[in-house]
Amino acid sequence: MTQKAFQDHYPDDVAWCYGCGRLNEQGLQIKSYWEEDEAVCVYTPRPHHIAIPGYVYGGLIASLIDCHSTGTAAAARYRADNRPMESEPALRFVTGSLHVDYLRPTPLGVPLELRSQVAEVKGRKVIVETTLSAGGEVCARGHVVAIQVPEHWGA
Amino acid sequence: MTQKAFQDHYPDDVAWCYGCGRLNEQGLQIKSYWEEDEAVCVYTPRPHHIAIPGYVYGGLIASLIDCHSTGTAAAARYRADNRPMESEPALRFVTGSLHVDYLRPTPLGVPLELRSQVAEVKGRKVIVETTLSAGGEVCARGHVVAIQVPEHWGA
Repeated sequence: MTQKAFQDHYPDDVAWCYGCGRLNEQGLQIKSYWEEDEAVCVYTPRPHHIAIPGYVYGGLIASLIDCHSTGTAAAARYRADNRPMESEPALRFVTGSLHVDYLRPTPLGVPLELRSQVAEVKGRKVIVETTLSAGGEVCARGHVVAIQVPEHWGA
Repeated sequence: MTQKAFQDHYPDDVAWCYGCGRLNEQGLQIKSYWEEDEAVCVYTPRPHHIAIPGYVYGGLIASLIDCHSTGTAAAARYRADNRPMESEPALRFVTGSLHVDYLRPTPLGVPLELRSQVAEVKGRKVIVETTLSAGGEVCARGHVVAIQVPEHWGA
């Protein structure tokens, strides 16, 4: 991919998140990209991300949906504002609420593909709908309400 | 505590879960106990479970709620059936759906207390409502629909 991942635009001071921070060496370091109007992330769980033997841990699925969605929310906000993701001030989002429906057991050992659509961008709130698939079969669906972080929050 | 944790009753072949399996050395290995009608779990996140500096990663919060709730669902089913948790066949639950409301940023570096109430035990379905608190302040609420696993599922 020639496109830079959403997460690779995060300023260093907010690039430590366990799920998506490129500076968290023990974290998942997920990467999300636009494919036209969908945000896509591919992640292959590690062997220890197990639920029962052969299947992926549901908490990891929730984590992937969570971080991919907040990254997508930020990217959508930049798009809505016609701003490049390199521009200042940097926009970051946190999760207001997360909902995951587990439709079938998710096999362990294969890449998982998350595809998100932005359902709403309104004020500081962005709603992101996601499918998580393995081998082309949808295993989980996510619904995230992401909230834009005030510029100096946590500073 | 003299009480054995819910998770310490899981048979070896289903004790590998990243969130709650006692045999997963890289996992969280959470422990849940009854306090009368509430199921309680205390977990102190590791430094790398960071969101932005000073705060806990939302995916970890979802993971804790997820595993504590499925463990609580199993324990509630045993109680409803007047069966000790040592009895065979072992009951395990998976997550049908998970909903988390993030009410405020959760501080990193202190123990988190999860308290769950069983809202419904009906057929193979158990509904579990959870609060996650830090320093006595509720930071997140969880709602989990847990589904009992058929005895030979995944075998």
